Amino acid sequence: MPRKLGIRDIQDIATGAAVLGTGGGGDPHIGMLMAIQAIEEYGPIELISPEELPDDALIVPSAMMGAPTVIVEKIPSGEESLVAFEALQSYLGREVYATIPIEAGGLNSMIPLALAARTGLPVVDADGMGRAFPELQMVTYHLGGLKATPMVLTDEKGNSLVLNTIDNFWTERLARSATVDMGGASLIAIYPMSGKECKEHGIAGIVTLAGQIGAAIREARGSHDSAIDRVLEITGGFRLFEGKIVDVSRRTEGGFARGEATLAGMGSDQGETLRISFQNENLVARTERGEVLACVPDLITVLDAETGKPVTTEALKYGYRVVVIGIPCSEKWRTPEGLEVVGPRYFGYDIDWVPVEELARDREGRSR
Amino acid sequence: MPRKLGIRDIQDIATGAAVLGTGGGGDPHIGMLMAIQAIEEYGPIELISPEELPDDALIVPSAMMGAPTVIVEKIPSGEESLVAFEALQSYLGREVYATIPIEAGGLNSMIPLALAARTGLPVVDADGMGRAFPELQMVTYHLGGLKATPMVLTDEKGNSLVLNTIDNFWTERLARSATVDMGGASLIAIYPMSGKECKEHGIAGIVTLAGQIGAAIREARGSHDSAIDRVLEITGGFRLFEGKIVDVSRRTEGGFARGEATLAGMGSDQGETLRISFQNENLVARTERGEVLACVPDLITVLDAETGKPVTTEALKYGYRVVVIGIPCSEKWRTPEGLEVVGPRYFGYDIDWVPVEELARDREGRSR
Repeated sequence: MPRKLGIRDIQDIATGAAVLGTGGGGDPHIGMLMAIQAIEEYGPIELISPEELPDDALIVPSAMMGAPTVIVEKIPSGEESLVAFEALQSYLGREVYATIPIEAGGLNSMIPLALAARTGLPVVDADGMGRAFPELQMVTYHLGGLKATPMVLTDEKGNSLVLNTIDNFWTERLARSATVDMGGASLIAIYPMSGKECKEHGIAGIVTLAGQIGAAIREARGSHDSAIDRVLEITGGFRLFEGKIVDVSRRTEGGFARGEATLAGMGSDQGETLRISFQNENLVARTERGEVLACVPDLITVLDAETGKPVTTEALKYGYRVVVIGIPCSEKWRTPEGLEVVGPRYFGYDIDWVPVEELARDREGRSR
Repeated sequence: MPRKLGIRDIQDIATGAAVLGTGGGGDPHIGMLMAIQAIEEYGPIELISPEELPDDALIVPSAMMGAPTVIVEKIPSGEESLVAFEALQSYLGREVYATIPIEAGGLNSMIPLALAARTGLPVVDADGMGRAFPELQMVTYHLGGLKATPMVLTDEKGNSLVLNTIDNFWTERLARSATVDMGGASLIAIYPMSGKECKEHGIAGIVTLAGQIGAAIREARGSHDSAIDRVLEITGGFRLFEGKIVDVSRRTEGGFARGEATLAGMGSDQGETLRISFQNENLVARTERGEVLACVPDLITVLDAETGKPVTTEALKYGYRVVVIGIPCSEKWRTPEGLEVVGPRYFGYDIDWVPVEELARDREGRSR
């Protein structure tokens, strides 16, 4: 049954999206303001589950593409995503039935909500990642054999592109160059799909999950223990490390925010050092001794030790006290095909993926 | 009155296009083979003058984009330009009346001829440069206020883009990046225009001129003096320098072939050294003493001293004996607006444009 999302829902989903964003995807705060403004102007948003979609309905994800470090300085007006969306609709010559987040994490959790409020279209309670990822082919739709194109990119100046490519890696390549040219960020409408494809290949219930995570953090009212415990309970996650940020290096490279954060352990992790490597999103959490605590595609999220609130990679700063948690990713990624697309080796790390729950159990065993 | 172009016409136009290409635009030889093959398969091509176009007819230039150094190693099949052309036609939702070269110089003189043979469409006897230029906004249509977009780019793999931009500089920027991604060369359909716009802003008669230049060189049968004299007579050009190539430096940079050729003077130029700077096309010819003999937008063409045949920048080699000629460009470029778009300062040279005929007269005066 459809349900209506109001302002508090949007706030909760934004908080949860920052947790699922695993540090990347851009701070949802800006997107939240866009979505709230759109709701105030046009009324609440209808959230529908994938099961409610007619098989032949046309579903179009709406998103922002680019480096979060740029996005926070280049705030979209909400108009650009409408332009991209309508350009794709007109290119396809068919009415769009609903929009949907391409990723549940970060700013892109909010873009389709703002668009839905403006257009009156429902939002599907599913995404293609169950988290956030930096590249266009890193979606479960890609694993399902869906094409990213026809895809539309627009910028705030009024430039637009319609792409048709032979595969999703070419989409990523051409769209990334255009995004860099456009100043590092663009608005996109991508992976047009049928209701049937959405049901088969999407990750269902993820918007609701984001809302539950956000509500738990809000209800804990700054008590970090209960906030973090509730998040772990809801997500089936693990407490990986507690520490203070002692170093952050970052660079914007090829349209991505890449870098590394170093944490000096505190509490039970006193004396240990953790390195978190990121490319937009946190990819690998590894101690100085080389012990991997979690790696992509499992989720690595940094929470503020005081409030339990998620910290994005661009907000990582010297002196911050944080708790690092790991959350098991969707089963869809935990296949040889999935790991080929988003496993640590794709990102250039010479390690094999081991489920975060196994790594956590091993570490627990050793510390006893 | 329309006239039919056969194989000998194509050969002559290709030779003339290499002269008008001022060293750039890619060797027309490859394009000539494509066009001849298309004529053999589909029959002769109809050439019509701009005056014959209905005012509301849709005219679409077809061209290749990229660095000539890449193009000579990445021969188009003829299929790609058809794909780009048809994609633009379908995007515009209107029948195309005729195709037209965007530039009369180089490979791009041939692409629309091959396309015309395949599609049975006529080719308009006009272009937007009266020569060859390296960037998309460097056309008289741009001076006339026409938009380069909607524009389609395709590659031989099957990727394609439809661009819509706020101005022609953005078109150049986004299309250039995509072309680099596509391996350094792409096929494009660009500057869709009406018959009226083509008449007003095109450079009429340029295909016929190319054919006349080529015929003169062919008829001279390797006698360089008569070939060069005939070319100068037909084009109103000037003999600038005779010498031997003693150095060539070139690099492929940002999708362009850039470089410099150095010539040691011979005959009446004995003891002098000439430097020709190019970015795809020859831009400035300057003696070591700093005397400019010709500069863009006037045409600087290098001819083989033995045969009078044009030498493209990628064919410039140590030891070649050549004659450098200068040809006055179209009057459309000889305005403040024209010079802003294609004058020496746009290309980064700290010199003012002086008409090649004045420079030649001055030099002649001094040498007496």
